Amino acid sequence: MAWTRRHLLDLESLTAEEIVEILDTAASYKEVSGRSVKKVPALRGKVVVNLFFEASTRTANSFALAAKRLSADTMSFSSSGSSVSKGETLIDTAKNIEAMGVDAFVIRHSAPGAPHLLARHTRCSVINAGDGSHEHPTQGLLDIFTIREHFGKVRGLTVSILGDIRHSRVARSNAQGLRKLGARVILAGPPTLVPPAIAQALGVEVSHDIDEVVRISDVLNCLRIQFERKAGRFFPGVREYAAIYGLNGERMKKARAHAIVMHPGPINRGIELTPELADGPRSVILKQVENGLAVRMAVLCLCMGAGGE
Amino acid sequence: MAWTRRHLLDLESLTAEEIVEILDTAASYKEVSGRSVKKVPALRGKVVVNLFFEASTRTANSFALAAKRLSADTMSFSSSGSSVSKGETLIDTAKNIEAMGVDAFVIRHSAPGAPHLLARHTRCSVINAGDGSHEHPTQGLLDIFTIREHFGKVRGLTVSILGDIRHSRVARSNAQGLRKLGARVILAGPPTLVPPAIAQALGVEVSHDIDEVVRISDVLNCLRIQFERKAGRFFPGVREYAAIYGLNGERMKKARAHAIVMHPGPINRGIELTPELADGPRSVILKQVENGLAVRMAVLCLCMGAGGE
Amino acid sequence: MAWTRRHLLDLESLTAEEIVEILDTAASYKEVSGRSVKKVPALRGKVVVNLFFEASTRTANSFALAAKRLSADTMSFSSSGSSVSKGETLIDTAKNIEAMGVDAFVIRHSAPGAPHLLARHTRCSVINAGDGSHEHPTQGLLDIFTIREHFGKVRGLTVSILGDIRHSRVARSNAQGLRKLGARVILAGPPTLVPPAIAQALGVEVSHDIDEVVRISDVLNCLRIQFERKAGRFFPGVREYAAIYGLNGERMKKARAHAIVMHPGPINRGIELTPELADGPRSVILKQVENGLAVRMAVLCLCMGAGGE
Repeated sequence: MAWTRRHLLDLESLTAEEIVEILDTAASYKEVSGRSVKKVPALRGKVVVNLFFEASTRTANSFALAAKRLSADTMSFSSSGSSVSKGETLIDTAKNIEAMGVDAFVIRHSAPGAPHLLARHTRCSVINAGDGSHEHPTQGLLDIFTIREHFGKVRGLTVSILGDIRHSRVARSNAQGLRKLGARVILAGPPTLVPPAIAQALGVEVSHDIDEVVRISDVLNCLRIQFERKAGRFFPGVREYAAIYGLNGERMKKARAHAIVMHPGPINRGIELTPELADGPRSVILKQVENGLAVRMAVLCLCMGAGGE
Repeated sequence: MAWTRRHLLDLESLTAEEIVEILDTAASYKEVSGRSVKKVPALRGKVVVNLFFEASTRTANSFALAAKRLSADTMSFSSSGSSVSKGETLIDTAKNIEAMGVDAFVIRHSAPGAPHLLARHTRCSVINAGDGSHEHPTQGLLDIFTIREHFGKVRGLTVSILGDIRHSRVARSNAQGLRKLGARVILAGPPTLVPPAIAQALGVEVSHDIDEVVRISDVLNCLRIQFERKAGRFFPGVREYAAIYGLNGERMKKARAHAIVMHPGPINRGIELTPELADGPRSVILKQVENGLAVRMAVLCLCMGAGGE
Repeated sequence: MAWTRRHLLDLESLTAEEIVEILDTAASYKEVSGRSVKKVPALRGKVVVNLFFEASTRTANSFALAAKRLSADTMSFSSSGSSVSKGETLIDTAKNIEAMGVDAFVIRHSAPGAPHLLARHTRCSVINAGDGSHEHPTQGLLDIFTIREHFGKVRGLTVSILGDIRHSRVARSNAQGLRKLGARVILAGPPTLVPPAIAQALGVEVSHDIDEVVRISDVLNCLRIQFERKAGRFFPGVREYAAIYGLNGERMKKARAHAIVMHPGPINRGIELTPELADGPRSVILKQVENGLAVRMAVLCLCMGAGGE
C-alpha cells in the first residue's frame, strides 16, 4: 500500500496496515544507523522544526537526529525566549515559522489536541511528539517495533503496561497500536492510577494484581511515575509503591521465561523498576531508544514525502 | 553595480542603488525557497554566528535558516551562559569567536551602535539584527521588498507607520529606506509615542489622526506595542489605544481599495490590529516573514562575498 | 606511530609521543581553517555530542565547530531541561544518548573523574572538556601547540603558569603535558592559590616572586581568577592582587625580549592581566583560541578513527 497521510497525530486514527507500513519502513532505516556513514539524502533541503512547549531534551534530540540522518536541516523553537512568551498564540507562531519555508513541525504541547489544531492550520507535516496526557504516537510505535523485532510478531502476545496510566500518553498510544495489531493489552497499577474509564475507552483489560500480571505477560512495559505531574498524590509513598507495584528480581521469578521488560525512560531506578532488571538480560530498554531513531526517520520520511491528506 | 560593503549596519548609510541591489538579489533568492531542495552552495564551509544579547527566537532563526539555505554552518552565542556573564566585553567576546575562524556576526544588542563598534574591531562581516531603538535594517529591507513586490514599485507610494514609533528601530529603518526609494512616509500614533524630533531627524511627516492616515495611505505598517519596554506608560489604557489608534475593519472601510496592512510581528491581536485584519485579504504579514528569508540570504551573500569595505 | 586511544581523558596518561602526534595532526588541520571552504569530510555521518554539566558557551562552541569542520553532525545536552534534572544518573543519560547511535561524547562536569567513569561505560569516544579542578586536556594541548608553533620547540623552555593554580584544571593539564615534552614548569602566585601539594604531585617548581618569574620565563601563562568559584576568598583584594601578582607593562619590562603572554580566557582585564598586555605584541591569546579549533579537530579525528582502546 502507499502511505497517504501528511501528519502523524495519534495511533487511534491509523489502520493496522498503516502501522505496519511505518514499522516496515523503520526496519529498513534501522540498517542506516548501523552504517559507518549514517546519512541518507532523503530529506535534503527540507527543514524540520522542533516546536516544544514542554521541556524534553531526549525526544527533541531523537527527532533532530532522525531529521539530520535524513539530511534535513533542523530548527528548534521552545516556549521560553520565543514570541510565545510575548503573548503570541500557537497558530500565530506556527504560521510565522511556516512562512520561513519549513516543511514539518514536531510538536510537544501540554494541551491534548494541540497537534490536531496545528494540522488544520498549516501546509506543513505535523508530527505529535506528545500532547498532554493524550497520545505520544512515536513512543507507541517504537515500543511496538521493539516488541515485533523481539518476538517476530505482535498478534497473540500479552502486553501489560504498568504504573501511572492516568497521566500517561505513552500508555494510550501503546494500547491503541497494540490492539490494532492483535495483542492482548492489560493496564495494571494501583486503582488510583488506572482509571477504569481509560481502559474502557481503549477497550483493554485492567488488573491491580501485579504478581498475576507478571505471571501471564510476554511484555511488561513499566511506565515512569511522573512526580513532576504530582503523580505522588495518588499513592501513599514511594517505598510502598515499589513494594506493591514495582518490578524487581524477586517478583520476576514468576514471569514467563521469555518475558521482556520495557520502559520509556527516564527510569526512577528502585521505584517502578530495580536497577538489576533495568540493566538485566530481560531488559530491551536501550533497544527502545535505538529503535526510536529508526521509527522517527520512517515517520518523517513517510509524512513529508506523502502528497495527499 | 557591484556591491562593495562588508557590513550591513543600517539603512541610513546605504544609497538607493545599494538598497535596490539587495532587493534584486533577494528576488532571485526567493526562487530558491520555492524549490523542492531549498539549498544553494553559495556559502559552503563558511560560518555565520548569531550573537544575540536580546532574546529573539524568530529573527535568530530566520538568519540561521537563511545561512543554512546558503549551505553555511551556524553557531549561536547568547548573553546568558556565555563568557559575557563572566564579565567579558563585547569586543573581547567577538574577537575570541572570530579567532575560531568564523566569517560573519549577526548581532542584536540593546545598545544603539553596538554593531558599528563591532564592525570596527573585526575582520568578519557584521549584520545588524537590531540595536536598541536605533535600526533593524533587514526588517526595513524585507518590508520594502514586500511593498515593492506587491505594487511593483516604491516611488510615489504613501507608506504610513503606525504606533509605537518612540521605541521602534523598525520604524527608523523603514523610514530611512523608503525615503531613499522615493516613498512618502508618515509616522502616526499618539503624540507620546511619536516624538516630533524623530520625524524631523528622519525628514518624514507626522500625523496623530489615524482616520485621515488610513484614508490616504497605500501601505499601513502597524508596529507592535512593546509592553516589555514599558510602552504602556505612554498611553492611558489598552482599550483606549485600540479604539483611537488601532486598526480594525470599521476603520479600514475608509481605506483605499488597494491599501495593504503590514506588521513586523509578533502581533498583539486586538490591540494594534484586529484578528480579522491580520488574517484578512489586505494583510501581507506572512509574506513579510517569507520575504525575510530571501532578504537575509541576499544580505549574507552580498556582505560575505564582498572583498572591500 | 599509530594512534590507538579511543578516549582523551587527561594528559597525565599520554606519552610524549602521543602528545606530539596530536600536535602534528593539529598542524595539518590548521591549514583547513585557512581555506575558503573550511570543511573536510573526515567524520561525515558521525555524531558528536556535547554533554556539558557546567555552563560554557566558548568551549562547547569550539568543539561543535571543530566537529562541523570535519563534517560531523552535532548534538548538545546540558543539565538544565534534560532528563538529568528528572533525577537520571550520568551513566543512564549517556547510555540513552549512545543508543541513538552517536559516536563521541565531549563532556564537561564538575566532578573530577566523570569522563573516566563515562569512558568505562560507553562504546563511544569520550573527550574530557574539563572535569572539576582535575584536567582540561584540550586546553593544555592548545597551549602547548601555541608555544611549539611560536618557538619551534618546547624542550628547554621555561614556562610559568600564574595565578589561581588551586582551582585550575588548565594548570594541571599544562604542567602534565609540558613536563613530558621537556619544558621547565613553574607554578606562581600567592601561597594561598598555589598549594605546595599540587606542585609536588605534578613534579614542578613553585614560586611566589612574580618579578623573578617574569625575569626568567620564556612563556607567561596567566590564569583567570575564578571569582565564580570563590577564588576571591584566597587573597585580600582585587587591587592588591593586581599590584602584587598581576601582569602589567611595568612588570614586563624585566621580561626576556622574546617572552610571550598567554591566557586561557575569558580575561579579567586589569586584574590578572592589563589590557595593554592582553592586546599587545607579546600576546598570543587569540592564537590560542584559533589553535584550539585545530587541536580539537585532531583529537576528535584521532579518537573517533581509532579502532583500539
